[in-house]
Amino acid sequence: MLTEGELDRVCVVLVRARNPSNIGAVARAMHNFGFRRMRVVNEFAPPLEAAKSAVDASDVMAAAVSCASVADAVADCTLVVGTTAVGERHLHHELLPLAEAAPRMLTELGGGGRLALLFGSEKTGLSNEELSHCNWLLTIPMRNSAEARHVSMNLGQAAAVCLYELVRESPAASDPQTSAAPPETAGHLTDPVTAAQLELITSLLNEVLGATEYPRRHAHNADPAHIRRLVRRVGADAIDAPVWIGILKQILWKLGLAGEHDASNLKS
Amino acid sequence: MLTEGELDRVCVVLVRARNPSNIGAVARAMHNFGFRRMRVVNEFAPPLEAAKSAVDASDVMAAAVSCASVADAVADCTLVVGTTAVGERHLHHELLPLAEAAPRMLTELGGGGRLALLFGSEKTGLSNEELSHCNWLLTIPMRNSAEARHVSMNLGQAAAVCLYELVRESPAASDPQTSAAPPETAGHLTDPVTAAQLELITSLLNEVLGATEYPRRHAHNADPAHIRRLVRRVGADAIDAPVWIGILKQILWKLGLAGEHDASNLKS
Repeated sequence: MLTEGELDRVCVVLVRARNPSNIGAVARAMHNFGFRRMRVVNEFAPPLEAAKSAVDASDVMAAAVSCASVADAVADCTLVVGTTAVGERHLHHELLPLAEAAPRMLTELGGGGRLALLFGSEKTGLSNEELSHCNWLLTIPMRNSAEARHVSMNLGQAAAVCLYELVRESPAASDPQTSAAPPETAGHLTDPVTAAQLELITSLLNEVLGATEYPRRHAHNADPAHIRRLVRRVGADAIDAPVWIGILKQILWKLGLAGEHDASNLKS
Repeated sequence: MLTEGELDRVCVVLVRARNPSNIGAVARAMHNFGFRRMRVVNEFAPPLEAAKSAVDASDVMAAAVSCASVADAVADCTLVVGTTAVGERHLHHELLPLAEAAPRMLTELGGGGRLALLFGSEKTGLSNEELSHCNWLLTIPMRNSAEARHVSMNLGQAAAVCLYELVRESPAASDPQTSAAPPETAGHLTDPVTAAQLELITSLLNEVLGATEYPRRHAHNADPAHIRRLVRRVGADAIDAPVWIGILKQILWKLGLAGEHDASNLKS
């Protein structure tokens, strides 16, 4: 997981984005993954202003900075990475698939560097001039690279995927503040059922089968070892096991094989 | 890289999506990553129709299917995974961060299974009833989990990130020998149960519970969504499922709720 300092040293740079709602979508993805610094390079201000005034504009959007040029936008950064769909033009840069690009960017951040991640306009991507500011390029691998010129991603989606890749290595998910999976849900399945509970389920199920004349019709499935394996395979956990036990006891009670008083006592 | 066959066995299921442009964005992400099957569960048709008629609608969008219910949409699938933002509600399912969820989904696909990946509505996500159709849940880890209820992702972005994670492991997956399905589990589990079979088991079990007055004594466990989750968690496979179906039908027959002739016909 990236530290606060590392998150602060990442700039997302949008170059000639035209659609305010796309700019807003990028800001939202940044906010979701904990990034804060957006810089927008546009000849004309309207898209950024419109995005800032949108109803659901985020803190990221409010803090976004307008820059006069790509050079300005990346001036304080130590690593400048451009995003591109392959096949659009002759590339003069080293090009890495996103999953290989991420470790390099993380290394730079870990060493105290500042990263600029550039996204081009929705229609044309980054121009050769804009790409020339980059140390190297990354691409999100997509299907049908032969027709790659027709396979460009939506700006907000491309940003979400790239930023996700930067934060996905979460061994530090042990950090309670950032961890996604709450222990209590994990608890549900990590608390395994005991063999004794499984055996109780097995014997109750055998009783039910006998009482319902199941072996008469399905002799090949009614062998006790078969039933035991059947129950083992379903692998109920420690929370569900008592529920199944209660269900089976209730069936037996209804079939007249146990008193209601008995069934009530054994409901757990 | 997923094979063509594996890509074909992934269904993206949108439940109560309201915004046609979001539906279109999901279709575009699917197209970019090579996925083809979209199913849309909506009470009202307009959002899907509007998305289909959009100017830049893709082949995926044109082929999208409208389903009457979540049960219908996942009926032929062997693994049903719901997506959720943490903290929205009390979770009754196992919950995995996306990076850990992907290998499990790939294993299912590698073993010949069919995957349904569910996304809920933009405003409310998946309801508890809708989640009850899922085997387990995944979440995209985001920052600020304390305020997680406010940190939901845009639908198109969430879909793009999830689908990216499924295809990002390109090198290893290309080697058929290293791909997903572990040989030892293959033996028994390669033939996974379909959601339709699990739903049949669920409805038979509900019948049995009703017939045995189970809800009268265990009201807190008798809610239909609770029972559906219970059945999903046991995870019967395709070999055992017919056995369980036969057992439940036999119980119903004994309780006088189906003729013996009927039970005989339905023994498989």
